[in-house]
Formats: sequence, C-alpha cells, structure tokens
Amino acid sequence: MNKSITIKSPATIANLVCGFDIIGLALEEPFDLMTLSFSDKPGLRIRHVDHYSLPEKPAENVAGAALLSLMEKLDDSIGFEMTIDKKIKPGSGLGSSAASAAGAVFAANKLLNNQFTTDDLIRFAMNGEKVASGVKHADNITPCILGGVTIIRSIHPLDAISISSPELFISIVHPQIEVKTSDARQILKEEVTLKKAIKQWGNIAGLVAGLMKSDYELIGRSLEDVIIEPIRSILIPAFEEVKSRCLASGALGGGISGSGPSIFMLHKNHSSAEQSEKIMREIYSRVGIEHKTYVTKLNHQGIKIK
Amino acid sequence: MNKSITIKSPATIANLVCGFDIIGLALEEPFDLMTLSFSDKPGLRIRHVDHYSLPEKPAENVAGAALLSLMEKLDDSIGFEMTIDKKIKPGSGLGSSAASAAGAVFAANKLLNNQFTTDDLIRFAMNGEKVASGVKHADNITPCILGGVTIIRSIHPLDAISISSPELFISIVHPQIEVKTSDARQILKEEVTLKKAIKQWGNIAGLVAGLMKSDYELIGRSLEDVIIEPIRSILIPAFEEVKSRCLASGALGGGISGSGPSIFMLHKNHSSAEQSEKIMREIYSRVGIEHKTYVTKLNHQGIKIK
Repeated sequence: MNKSITIKSPATIANLVCGFDIIGLALEEPFDLMTLSFSDKPGLRIRHVDHYSLPEKPAENVAGAALLSLMEKLDDSIGFEMTIDKKIKPGSGLGSSAASAAGAVFAANKLLNNQFTTDDLIRFAMNGEKVASGVKHADNITPCILGGVTIIRSIHPLDAISISSPELFISIVHPQIEVKTSDARQILKEEVTLKKAIKQWGNIAGLVAGLMKSDYELIGRSLEDVIIEPIRSILIPAFEEVKSRCLASGALGGGISGSGPSIFMLHKNHSSAEQSEKIMREIYSRVGIEHKTYVTKLNHQGIKIK
Repeated sequence: MNKSITIKSPATIANLVCGFDIIGLALEEPFDLMTLSFSDKPGLRIRHVDHYSLPEKPAENVAGAALLSLMEKLDDSIGFEMTIDKKIKPGSGLGSSAASAAGAVFAANKLLNNQFTTDDLIRFAMNGEKVASGVKHADNITPCILGGVTIIRSIHPLDAISISSPELFISIVHPQIEVKTSDARQILKEEVTLKKAIKQWGNIAGLVAGLMKSDYELIGRSLEDVIIEPIRSILIPAFEEVKSRCLASGALGGGISGSGPSIFMLHKNHSSAEQSEKIMREIYSRVGIEHKTYVTKLNHQGIKIK
C-alpha cells in the first residue's frame, strides 16, 4: 500500500454554454497539485502552500469537507495529511473548488486501493462543493474525475455519463473581478418561456451529437445559450466584445465558464486558440482590467497521478 | 427519366418523451403508399384511394401543399398526378400528415433526379405540415425522410441532424379518441420553471448520448418528461396505467407519440414489444375504447421506393 500520493487535479468548464448545470469538460491546465499521505494520527490535517488564505480547518475547507465525507466510511483510526498547492484561482469560474474536492477524494481512493466507485467519489466531492457554494452540484467534479466531456443527467439519483469528443483546444480569459457563484445564481429568473427552453434543448441535443460525431461545425452552431448567458454576461465587462471578436477570428464558439467571470472559447486547433487569447489580452488591457489567460486543450483523462 | 414512382412513407414518432419539438424517429410500420407520375397536363392532381375523406384540392391537401411549394421552383409546364393510399390514420399522433408531405416531395425529387437537397425537401414538406396543424414543424418530416433518429436543432435556419441508434423495437397503441395537435399545443403553459427545464435538458442530453452509445439502460432512464407529459397525458384515458404496466413488463420507456393520443414504448427486443402490446390491448378493451396496436421497429432508412 502506498503511503503517499501526489496528483494534478485539473480546472474544468461547467455549463459549456447551453448545458447549464448538466455538461462540463476537463482542461489540461491549470491544475492544483495535491499530496495526500496516510498519517499514524487519526483524523485529517490540511496545509495550504499557496497564497489564497483558504481555511485549513477540514470541515471549512472544500477538499477537507469532501475527504471527511469519505472518511465517514472508513475506520476511525485512519488518518491523513493533505498538502494543497492551489493553482486554480478560487472564484475564477474554472472549477477551483471542484478540483480541490475531487482531487482529495480521488487521491484518498488511490491510497485505499480503489475501494470506492467513481459515483461514490462524485458524491463525496459534492459535499466539498456544498461548502464552497452552498449547493451540491457535480458538473465540475465529474469531468475533473472522469476527464473529457461529461453529462450529469441527474444528481438524485446520481447519473453521470462520459461522452466521446474530438480533440478541442480552449482559450480562456479570467478577468480579475469577483462574481460569486451564489450571486450569479440569484440573478437568474425562476421561470423561462417554453419557447426558449425548446431552443435551449435543441442546442443541447446538437452539442452532444456534435461532440459524439466529432462534427466541429455542429459543436460551434450548438454553443448558443438563450437563457443564462443574456443575464449573467451583464456581470462580465466586455463579454460581448470578447465573444464576437473571437468568433470572427475562427473560434467554434464559447461563453461564460461556469458562473464566470472567466470566458472560454473552443477551437479546432492550437493556432486559433492563440489568436483568441491575443484578442482577450488586447481587450482587457485596453479596458484596464487585470486578467490572466490560458491556451490549453481538452483533458481526456481528468485527475492525473504525478 | 422515370415517369412514375411508388413509395412507402412511414409513420414517425415526434418528441420522443423528453425531446419536445426537437427529436423524432421513423417506424417500419405503418406507412402510406403514394404513387407520383409526371403528367402532360401542367399543375397537380391528387386522388385519395383511402377512406379518410381528405381534401383532394392540392392547396388544401397536406401532400399537395408540400408538392406545390416544390413545384414553385420548377418550370410551369411540369405536371404531376398523385395517388395516395393513406394507411396512417390522421390524428393518430404518428406523423400522418408528415408522411403525406414528406412522401410527396421525396417522390417528386426522385422523378426529378434528386435536384433538391434533403434540407430543401424538409422545407417544402413543412408547408404541408402547416396546412395540417397551422404550424411549420419538422420533427416528424425529418425522420420520415432521413430515417432513424433525428434532431431538429433549429427550424430558422434549418438544422436537421441524424444520429446513430441501436436496434429498437416499438409497441404502439392508438386509442381511437380525437386529440387535435392544435388543442394539445394550446393546453401547454407558456412558462416553465428553470428547475424543470434543467431536468428536461439533462434527460435530452442523456437520451442523445444513450442512443449514440447504444446504451439501452441510459435510453430508458432518459425517457422522462417533466414538462409536457404531465399536462398532455390528462387528455389520454388510461395513460398512466399503460405506461406503468409496460415499464413493469420490461419496456425501456415511452410516452405520448407526438401530440397523442397514441402511446408508444421502446424495447430492446421484439418479445418485450409484444408483451407491451398485449398489455395495451387488455387495458383499452377493459376501458371500452376502440384501439389499434402496432409492434414495429426503428426504420433506419425512412421513405422507401417500392
């Protein structure tokens, strides 16, 4: 039995434009580095080696809360030490809390010789997500653990589905403004018109089919959100300009990553992603908002052992 | 150039439970028989050899209206004679009007050496659907022409997508009560809760993924409609009993075909479909409603030349 494991837990993009609350994908970068070790002392101790001043008390820490819910299934005598080097900035909309929660339980399960199923891990990790946003959701956790593109058909009971996808390159800009997941959720309307809902589910069906058929044009046409984006995008300065200029430069499509403020675009190749990154930088430099950009690709594997 | 063609234009199931207005599939049976011939006399003449007393004046006839809209693109001197033997009962919810509309333009296109694209044919046929229900929709026409399972991502602009599917057997009961498409549409609420819309699009994503992965269990779990069925099923006597007993006997899932009143169930094999058919017959015999049943399977080809 291994005594210690280090993993790379990746950032993820939830919603994927039209798939609000149900679709997500895993990125190659950025990722958190997490080391989990067995300890002779029962219980859990957490140490952050990053500079985000996150709580280290296990029940208040996202990774801690997830791991504690797994540890409820174990013998009381078992103890862990966890070191987290967070590289995915909290509040970026890139699944930072999911990476912590999923990484913790994934690493523990490896040390425990895979005694839990993937569905178990998703359920444990959702308890971490609840600490972060007050809501149990799985649309970042699932692609983080499984890799690729995933669908959450249902949370109760849990029905997590992996789907195939062609190679995808992704450009991302994280304008350094704060959009809290809970705020981003509150501004949504509780009712939508049936007409818009039908348009949305046409796009979702098109997106799933486009990914599974490796039809880039269909993926692009389906990346349209008539319900959430028109409301949430108001919280993100220059959103429309970023999106329209990236599309004009050849991006397949894109929108708000998770609940924002990061914006992502999907691309058929690396050079198109680089072009969009350049546009993103140029716009936020002009507007005068601090920002960070990424050019990365779809991570088919999810969490990796280092 | 052929002077005459006879085709079998199949029944179709629109909506497919969760995919309201966007998903449809083609059936092997029942089907309409249609013969189209060039005529030396310009214009279009229609003759029905069935007993449904449908209008034979081209502009008032579903197949006629569709074909007239195709003929607008042709030389004025071209004339057709069309004979229709309708075997799909109008008002059954099995795409009877779509079979007429799609069949007419498909047959004409064959006589014209395929000068129109499939998208053209869908657009022409929608003009026939408009005569039938007052609304242009393509969710029956598209599977009728393309076969298999299809998605209509958008009507304006038209975006019709074929997706792969495993072999599926289908049991159907048509209780002989009248449910007009226009009435079935009117009772729907114009607004839905975001919560239910999310549940619905999870099921749609699951259904598309299940079909494309040939995952029968996922197809079954995804055949759930939280928006339309609870309202429309009230119009169909014994709906709940039919559905619950067929599910208990092994059907994957099912619901209202199109806007009803037919009820369909999907099955992994023929014997399961036969069991459901037996249940359907038993229930409507007991309730005392005239009914017709079918056991058929997915039609991967769509309209066939006889």
